[in-house]
Amino acid sequence: MRSRGFRSIVYIQTRSKIYRSMDRARILEDILNPSSIAFFGANNDLMKMGTTQMVNMQLAGYTGKILPIHPRLDTVQGLKAYKSILDIPDDELPDIFFIVLPSKIVPRVLDECGSRGVTKGVVVSAGFREMGATQLKQELMDVVNKHGIAFLGPNCFGFFNNHIKVDSQAELSSINTTWLSAYNPKRGGVSIASQSGTYMSHIFMAGRDFNMKFSKTISLGNEATIDIVDALKYLGEDDHTRVIGLYIEEIKRPEEFVAVARKISTKKPIIAMYVGGTNAGGRAISSHTGSMAGSDEIFNGVAKQVGILRAYTMEDWLVYCHSLDRCPLPKGRKVAILTNAGGPGATMADLAERMELEVPVFSEKLQARLKKGLVPTAQVANVVDLTFELDIAKFYSKLPKDILKSGEIDGLLVYGIFGTSFFHHLESMREDLDFPIDDMEAMMFPLLKRYATYPRKYGIPIIASHLLGPDDNAAAYLQDLGFPVFKTPNQAVKAFWALAEYNRMKKARSN
Amino acid sequence: MRSRGFRSIVYIQTRSKIYRSMDRARILEDILNPSSIAFFGANNDLMKMGTTQMVNMQLAGYTGKILPIHPRLDTVQGLKAYKSILDIPDDELPDIFFIVLPSKIVPRVLDECGSRGVTKGVVVSAGFREMGATQLKQELMDVVNKHGIAFLGPNCFGFFNNHIKVDSQAELSSINTTWLSAYNPKRGGVSIASQSGTYMSHIFMAGRDFNMKFSKTISLGNEATIDIVDALKYLGEDDHTRVIGLYIEEIKRPEEFVAVARKISTKKPIIAMYVGGTNAGGRAISSHTGSMAGSDEIFNGVAKQVGILRAYTMEDWLVYCHSLDRCPLPKGRKVAILTNAGGPGATMADLAERMELEVPVFSEKLQARLKKGLVPTAQVANVVDLTFELDIAKFYSKLPKDILKSGEIDGLLVYGIFGTSFFHHLESMREDLDFPIDDMEAMMFPLLKRYATYPRKYGIPIIASHLLGPDDNAAAYLQDLGFPVFKTPNQAVKAFWALAEYNRMKKARSN
Repeated sequence: MRSRGFRSIVYIQTRSKIYRSMDRARILEDILNPSSIAFFGANNDLMKMGTTQMVNMQLAGYTGKILPIHPRLDTVQGLKAYKSILDIPDDELPDIFFIVLPSKIVPRVLDECGSRGVTKGVVVSAGFREMGATQLKQELMDVVNKHGIAFLGPNCFGFFNNHIKVDSQAELSSINTTWLSAYNPKRGGVSIASQSGTYMSHIFMAGRDFNMKFSKTISLGNEATIDIVDALKYLGEDDHTRVIGLYIEEIKRPEEFVAVARKISTKKPIIAMYVGGTNAGGRAISSHTGSMAGSDEIFNGVAKQVGILRAYTMEDWLVYCHSLDRCPLPKGRKVAILTNAGGPGATMADLAERMELEVPVFSEKLQARLKKGLVPTAQVANVVDLTFELDIAKFYSKLPKDILKSGEIDGLLVYGIFGTSFFHHLESMREDLDFPIDDMEAMMFPLLKRYATYPRKYGIPIIASHLLGPDDNAAAYLQDLGFPVFKTPNQAVKAFWALAEYNRMKKARSN
Repeated sequence: MRSRGFRSIVYIQTRSKIYRSMDRARILEDILNPSSIAFFGANNDLMKMGTTQMVNMQLAGYTGKILPIHPRLDTVQGLKAYKSILDIPDDELPDIFFIVLPSKIVPRVLDECGSRGVTKGVVVSAGFREMGATQLKQELMDVVNKHGIAFLGPNCFGFFNNHIKVDSQAELSSINTTWLSAYNPKRGGVSIASQSGTYMSHIFMAGRDFNMKFSKTISLGNEATIDIVDALKYLGEDDHTRVIGLYIEEIKRPEEFVAVARKISTKKPIIAMYVGGTNAGGRAISSHTGSMAGSDEIFNGVAKQVGILRAYTMEDWLVYCHSLDRCPLPKGRKVAILTNAGGPGATMADLAERMELEVPVFSEKLQARLKKGLVPTAQVANVVDLTFELDIAKFYSKLPKDILKSGEIDGLLVYGIFGTSFFHHLESMREDLDFPIDDMEAMMFPLLKRYATYPRKYGIPIIASHLLGPDDNAAAYLQDLGFPVFKTPNQAVKAFWALAEYNRMKKARSN
């Protein structure tokens, strides 16, 4: 298999003259927390990408100031526009620039920004590196060097920050410069740095099924002045970030990457999806030739060495990040499986064993305790299968507590949530149906609220799955509380695997 | 690894006295197409499972007759009730019985059914085999033998039939006896036989993301008189069934299973999820001990021998079934990847190569043709990456046609659908936004309609993915037309893998 290697390109060498790595991490902090933004490339035509991005920023909760720059228009999307950044008064100069313009005018605009002292921002525009436009690239880097400019991109989608403090008095708010900010996620501890801009915009949709919660996402683009090592370092130091996800196509500074990752990975999990290692994956990334062989194996070696967990699909990547954000770490690989339905329980047990997790048979003592009050068809040896028992007090209180207190397992996987959505649905179909829904909910929500505290209380992760996802109101409620409820039984098993695997690597490295 | 084997139990030996296998497949046809049903175990308390099941049948489109049987009530859920099946007039005798009663009274009720000549149906009730109730089991089988009774179960969830003809004049309608018929899927060619009842009720939820279409599902339960071999045989002969999914915990008649599967698999794909092979999976299924070793390997051997495709997670299982139902078979393993976003394209290429599919570099000629009219940043070597080109005529017409006509590939994987949902969403957030949505949709829907015909026209499968799933209106429209649009890029790759793999097995066996 012919494969691509890790390459260095001109950009990074040039850049290193300007900022040390420490500085670039601090600059990222500034870029992600602007109190005002000069926006280049929006107008009043909503079919233009720049316009849509600016409207998105306006609509999606950014509480800072946007200063549109347009050579002809007086107002852009209802905001006063300036002809050029040169026209903005000194006391209104923005913290960052955000540029969505044809590539050939970007160097001039950046020069103007630099001349006003606005030296940080984002360049969305593409067409510098991937088109082999060497002259334009040189112009860009000359301006960068002249003013000491640093930016995300070019050819990126910007960033998302769910923990932005626009000024020192303000409450935390959020900003999403990527394209689909209609799907802004809730606040959580997952942050992502990505060499794919699309993913930074689209993963929020993919994460909706389990109400995935984010802190920051950073689209790196072609990394002219800030690269994935800088982003990793920044996220490693960021207080709001508990888990770091990386989407990697190539690593330009492998030594620095290894050094930074090694330091972070004992404190925060790093989950990487690396797609540059196969022939086809590598070719998809770039049309460059003469690549190094074997980089998939090299990356695996690096990952093992520095304690990075690797994911091979986008879905696994998000599932791992979410569970590591939401759950306490397990001490080992022993799981209990609690279900109200045999098939999904058997499926989880089967997959758990295939993934080298353990599903131990419970002690006689624990089995006897669990058995109390269950219907005679119930199984309690582990898998614990309630066989259509609908007593939610057992499912959300007695049984999990018995299991968590036993000391016999390191994690609890659950299938089957009992929301009342189904009854609401039947009611909506026929008027004369009469369910005690209010009574059920009066009991259900307080139980769920307590249930969601068990993982921290007992120091043992609980991971649930429900095929309806957030369409079930009990599942949605748990997800809102930050409790992990995935959609498929396989996701729950993989989520626990990620916890156990990270824990194993962390232990191995601290010995 | 200690594992469970394929076992024979008392039931099947007893049963084989009564019906030959051919008869049982015909009996299944009768059970799944009742024009009237005697329902035992519903009352007017909606918190009882039987009641909910009957109400579901009433609400979810069954056009036949339901005759509730209740010892005391005159009406059940608005229908005239009978005290016993013995009270039903001869000319109103139902085609099948459906029993959700405590297990200990089931033999008596079955005896009464048998005495009226109602000898087919479903027994939902549990507690015969899994509780070791040998005396009750014997009573049950005595009644079965006495009257020549055949039924699904015990301990099952019944069935779903999306192609039921209640009488010879009627239009096709549907019946769902399982618990969650609120989520009835559309009519399609996938039929499933399952030893887990829950899955038969829950997979419809899991399939909603890609609008999975079904013909029939059969919950087999404990297989007292009808087993998975009978169901397989029936589905193999059923005209509406194009793909057969099996959820297997154990196979009681392995020789018959092999013979039947071998015959069907060259005509229809069989996709099996088998969870009885691991220690933990096997234990989850039953508390029996003294199991045979190595059955996971045995099952793999059987699967290879007879041409069954195996899935290891519920998600893969459904993805494989759906794509085999929706797509023409590819001639080989060469895929083109068409995307409007680099990251997902690279991800698909990477996973495709890991799954031993080929992502060939296109010929110079094809590359030149594709390149015409694309933005300069676009990639055309395969992956074809449009890099934010929003011209839907290119995406849904010119480019796919160029690729499909080239003769260079066997399948086309697509990421990125361009619906107008996003613009509708923005509009709903701010009144003064003005999009040419009507114009876009006037162009979009006819294009999509033609696009959906390409796979059959060119004899080459196209499989799309979109992270919004049916929340994108273009994706939803394609799904309605029966075109496969999965949610994640990994699902699209796996879906094509299933097509290629089934085709390979089929070819190998017909040589």
